[in-house]
Amino acid sequence: MKITTSTPKQDGFYMPSELAEHRCTYMLWPERGDNWRGNAEKAEHVFCEVARTIAKYEPVVMCVSPREYPIALDLNMPNVRVVEITNNDAWIRDCGATFVIDGYGRMRANDFGFNAWGGLVNGLYFPWDQDDLVAAKMANIEAVDFYRARDFILEGGSIHSDGEGTILTTEECLLDPGRNPDLTKEQIEEKLKQYLGAEKVLWLPKGIYMDEDTNGHIDNICQFVAPGKVVLAWEDNEDDPQHERSQLALDYLLSETDAKGRQIEVIKLHVPNPVTITKAESRGVDVVEDTFPRNEGDRLPASYVNYYNCNGAIILPIFKDPHDQAAIDTLQSLFPDKVIEPIYAREILLGGGNIHCITQQVPRP
Amino acid sequence: MKITTSTPKQDGFYMPSELAEHRCTYMLWPERGDNWRGNAEKAEHVFCEVARTIAKYEPVVMCVSPREYPIALDLNMPNVRVVEITNNDAWIRDCGATFVIDGYGRMRANDFGFNAWGGLVNGLYFPWDQDDLVAAKMANIEAVDFYRARDFILEGGSIHSDGEGTILTTEECLLDPGRNPDLTKEQIEEKLKQYLGAEKVLWLPKGIYMDEDTNGHIDNICQFVAPGKVVLAWEDNEDDPQHERSQLALDYLLSETDAKGRQIEVIKLHVPNPVTITKAESRGVDVVEDTFPRNEGDRLPASYVNYYNCNGAIILPIFKDPHDQAAIDTLQSLFPDKVIEPIYAREILLGGGNIHCITQQVPRP
Repeated sequence: MKITTSTPKQDGFYMPSELAEHRCTYMLWPERGDNWRGNAEKAEHVFCEVARTIAKYEPVVMCVSPREYPIALDLNMPNVRVVEITNNDAWIRDCGATFVIDGYGRMRANDFGFNAWGGLVNGLYFPWDQDDLVAAKMANIEAVDFYRARDFILEGGSIHSDGEGTILTTEECLLDPGRNPDLTKEQIEEKLKQYLGAEKVLWLPKGIYMDEDTNGHIDNICQFVAPGKVVLAWEDNEDDPQHERSQLALDYLLSETDAKGRQIEVIKLHVPNPVTITKAESRGVDVVEDTFPRNEGDRLPASYVNYYNCNGAIILPIFKDPHDQAAIDTLQSLFPDKVIEPIYAREILLGGGNIHCITQQVPRP
Repeated sequence: MKITTSTPKQDGFYMPSELAEHRCTYMLWPERGDNWRGNAEKAEHVFCEVARTIAKYEPVVMCVSPREYPIALDLNMPNVRVVEITNNDAWIRDCGATFVIDGYGRMRANDFGFNAWGGLVNGLYFPWDQDDLVAAKMANIEAVDFYRARDFILEGGSIHSDGEGTILTTEECLLDPGRNPDLTKEQIEEKLKQYLGAEKVLWLPKGIYMDEDTNGHIDNICQFVAPGKVVLAWEDNEDDPQHERSQLALDYLLSETDAKGRQIEVIKLHVPNPVTITKAESRGVDVVEDTFPRNEGDRLPASYVNYYNCNGAIILPIFKDPHDQAAIDTLQSLFPDKVIEPIYAREILLGGGNIHCITQQVPRP
């Protein structure tokens, strides 16, 4: 059932931290050959590796188009349900539902507008009508009512919640003219507070260098590891354009407090060395009008921060890079009780995102 | 997760009676213009009336193709979840999952083969590949494992279970060469016992007159009202071809006992006067090669027995016929604690079935 007359905050609901207990994880099967090389066959393998890994810790719901459904079903992956959801691409973090809970064991969902990261201004493809239905379909499968906020364009990857009143986001993304050009920053902040049940929004200036697909989503540069404590994508090399972006974020975070008045503690996660698209990788992608191209030599927004927190583990993208081990070690020290599950994720990165972008948690209310 | 190496009976599972408590009811949205006149618009209204009525008593899951999904979602029917399931037509009783339970609160599903009521021998349409996936999709939505018995063709409308070891079916349907021509009657009976967890199969000779679509499904002629007790579609007029069919069934039932050794008590439900397709009704259906035609003057298999048992009510098809009231009264006397919910269902009948054919219960394990 849809709710159009109130907001989660008005009804006592809020978005819990991704670190809180999950009921399950949703994913969406990659398919389009104009984004995933070789008709997405290599991507499918990595998506399945991610699904199988998460499924060791919590149930996974793999959403698949009718065309690909029999293929996914026949894999018979343990602890993975396969449900039909038609889509335009595989980024369920962004087009899927954002769930909210209250203090009485109840759960609802948010169904924000989705316009492929910028609509006709600077979106990645057209149309995006099926992506825009994914959130409502998830809410119906999970049997929860949902807030239909279709006039507010918001992707799940552009927000993080600490579950205690603080939201992390970036100005680069949320103030981009492709999203909500008719809303001021103050109005957008109020929407975030209303729909995520929050008190304070922390606005990092920018996302990762060359994260042009998403206009600098927060989930590639900064993530809560606890209330008042974040990991930040970092670059030591002052000649690399990433350095300035990371420094800007660090300066901002150290100057701010969260909704509870805490100073923000920042742990650096050094990014991998620059990753660029090879000739073979570029040529594997179908060239289609109205779809964002993947050209040889383009730098990709590689970051360890785009990991996914599931119930007993951290599903961490790695890149066969000298910085991989430091990322693993840092996260293991931050989460001594969790298993760090590194997955070689270049194939997901080639599509424009990473493990956090292809997962969406359903909290356990 | 699919199970291919055992059967429900081997694992201690059985099909409960439709009269046992339900978790919810599944339905499938009508759409194809070569079966439902006027591009199914009138049928949609009646399907929604059925859904809204059931939803007063238990949750409904309305399955809808991607094309029609936004229409169904926007109706925002209370207690009705809308999920995407691509399909070839709307008969979820027949293509959907048949659920089985055990004595330990567990539930699984059966995914039988489906070939549009006869495949290339005498099926109603081609292809039926999407219908054949509906059962697996339902099992995945309900988060239960399922037995994949795809080499055994069986529709849910061709069986009734009393939940105490007895299955009702018809020879006309299950022995038709369009289903399982390579299996003997004894082998089919063994399959029914294995997959429905039963001890005894009662084989009525024939279904309702002119139920050519389904080759005489049991759910149009006979239904359990309790273990050892059935309602039977009846026709007093000895000149009507239905009379002989009903008499054959009555004679058979009175000569048999059920799995527990009980004599079968038979309550007659007189059928409505003959219902035939009007010129306007026939002309509203798109004529398409490979689809069963709906011609003016064709007699339809109208029967009150095709009602649906939900938790607190009986959803009963009526036909604006002099026999309607007797059917209502008989069922009310049989179920004094249930509400009889009559729905004018000619539009469903025009598509080839009735309320029982468009519903499928999920038991509460």
